[in-house]
Amino acid sequence: MGGAVRRRRVTIADVASHAQVSTTAVSKVLRNAYGVSAAMRDRVRAAIDELGYRPHNAARAMRGRTFTIGVLLPHINNPFFGEILDGLMEQLGGTDYQAILIQGGRDPQGEHRAIDALVDRQVDGILMIAPLGSKAELEEVAAGTPTVVLGPHEKSAVYDSVHDDDEAGAELVVEHLIALGHRRIAHIGQRDASRGRPAALLHTIRERTYRRVMAEHGLAGEIAVAATSYTEAGGHAAARELLARDPLPTAIFAGADLAAFGALAAVYEAGLTVPGDISLAGYDNTRMAGLAHISLTTVDQDGAILGRTAARLLLERLAGRSAAVDFSLSPTLIVRRSTARSGSPC
Amino acid sequence: MGGAVRRRRVTIADVASHAQVSTTAVSKVLRNAYGVSAAMRDRVRAAIDELGYRPHNAARAMRGRTFTIGVLLPHINNPFFGEILDGLMEQLGGTDYQAILIQGGRDPQGEHRAIDALVDRQVDGILMIAPLGSKAELEEVAAGTPTVVLGPHEKSAVYDSVHDDDEAGAELVVEHLIALGHRRIAHIGQRDASRGRPAALLHTIRERTYRRVMAEHGLAGEIAVAATSYTEAGGHAAARELLARDPLPTAIFAGADLAAFGALAAVYEAGLTVPGDISLAGYDNTRMAGLAHISLTTVDQDGAILGRTAARLLLERLAGRSAAVDFSLSPTLIVRRSTARSGSPC
Repeated sequence: MGGAVRRRRVTIADVASHAQVSTTAVSKVLRNAYGVSAAMRDRVRAAIDELGYRPHNAARAMRGRTFTIGVLLPHINNPFFGEILDGLMEQLGGTDYQAILIQGGRDPQGEHRAIDALVDRQVDGILMIAPLGSKAELEEVAAGTPTVVLGPHEKSAVYDSVHDDDEAGAELVVEHLIALGHRRIAHIGQRDASRGRPAALLHTIRERTYRRVMAEHGLAGEIAVAATSYTEAGGHAAARELLARDPLPTAIFAGADLAAFGALAAVYEAGLTVPGDISLAGYDNTRMAGLAHISLTTVDQDGAILGRTAARLLLERLAGRSAAVDFSLSPTLIVRRSTARSGSPC
Repeated sequence: MGGAVRRRRVTIADVASHAQVSTTAVSKVLRNAYGVSAAMRDRVRAAIDELGYRPHNAARAMRGRTFTIGVLLPHINNPFFGEILDGLMEQLGGTDYQAILIQGGRDPQGEHRAIDALVDRQVDGILMIAPLGSKAELEEVAAGTPTVVLGPHEKSAVYDSVHDDDEAGAELVVEHLIALGHRRIAHIGQRDASRGRPAALLHTIRERTYRRVMAEHGLAGEIAVAATSYTEAGGHAAARELLARDPLPTAIFAGADLAAFGALAAVYEAGLTVPGDISLAGYDNTRMAGLAHISLTTVDQDGAILGRTAARLLLERLAGRSAAVDFSLSPTLIVRRSTARSGSPC
């Protein structure tokens, strides 16, 4: 553990000698190249384990790879990101790649610095989760380092895009609330901090879809949006704003589960009940949403599949693919007890 | 943004020339050294901004620094870690250091690989949050890279330790429940996956303290522990186990808020109420615990102070301190509505 700083480092030649194969064969196993037999792989892996060989530095020196995937995310406090990472780690599990994470924060400057830091760490590939940078900025990064962008709906010729179909997801929620008889349906959104392409961002898409579906049902006059942030505090503040209206909304669609949890607290503080007085829906299907005492109606976008797909696409790029992929996953509505018919007894 | 991969990279000499100072002066500003005037710092920073200079690679080449702090954490899904990181980032905010994160997972082998990856990335310092490795293993890392360990209660001559006083925190909870008249107080703990020093780990300390305080009050016969994990799913499974007992416990002390949230769901599913039938307390004072509809009694250990302190100690080590520090923070009990007198009406 770090002792290699002082011990003599085991080299790829040691592994080759121990396994009685060529260094080229060891290198092939290390980078999961095609044309390696299972027997060869087992033999080399056994030698690696016995000698305690660490491929990273040696391989980097040898062929310019660091076996590192850099993951940029706004902040670790969104539990949905944890599910994405679980999928990513699962997919990387059978390889020599390690994921390192960096927080970009809520403004483009901090994100820029964070991306620079990943590039400076010479990561082999970058996964950007919900980045704020403009498409041009992301493409500049992608030109130098294989990149997958998770979140924004933006096709690029240079990087791969992975996203949930946020329009379909938001439509499922609003249609569900309207079908329950609700008309005064309010929305909790997120203020835009991005650079020049709001139309591609998931929170903008969710809000825009809410407005469109409301208008399509003749409810344009009932549209009410409080834009704060997709956090507990943001949802709490937004719900307080919405609950100060007269007449009260009968349903609230929060753009993210975290914001819905904050809204739930505000409803409770106002002496109202969910779903007796207010139906409440979120987005993300976090683990907390499924707990019996919360039981939040929400949209499931399967973070693990998104994370696994992002990892697979990065590995493909590292293996030589250069044609760009755009991967869109259809979400599903999970109806739980937080939504009920408008005017129904609690 | 990554474009430096293709553009000619701006060098420290360019910055010095632009600011009309020496490269040594630029270097001093970069590493926040003593003896730099405010005017000098402003001048150099202006040149850095104008030229878009990125200190990381150049400085690494020049003096062996990467201006990177590596943070090891088990998994990003614990919201308390987010608070620690907020404190860390705040403290690093005025410096050129960036934090990169890596997940160690729940077994020592995965953690070992993750630490190796940080060392291989040549981070200048490492913050390990709740590591599983043995003290000897951590000290081997610390011998090569300045290290601060957050969580375990273990003084080392080689690394700094930062922790909450978990014994004091657990004692506050159990004494609170006993003072409310509870006798059948159960505990939700975490199974031990660490290497050879359980006595130093926070979950072991919390459980041990629970057992000690119960015994001191003549309640040794009422001790009931379900050891799962400090997660929603772990708390849910543990509470189901405890709620299958006859007679039922009247109070549950979960070793972490996340586990308490899972327990809350299990109590609800069993047709019982908190605190009417079961008083429930957690540990960590996560944001969710403070929301009105949850209102969980818990222990506040101020993650932001722990994170800021860890960053400060790392910066001190990078500035040359080698004497080890052990920093212990006294926690406080936050009493909310989830705990009530034993046998009280709901």
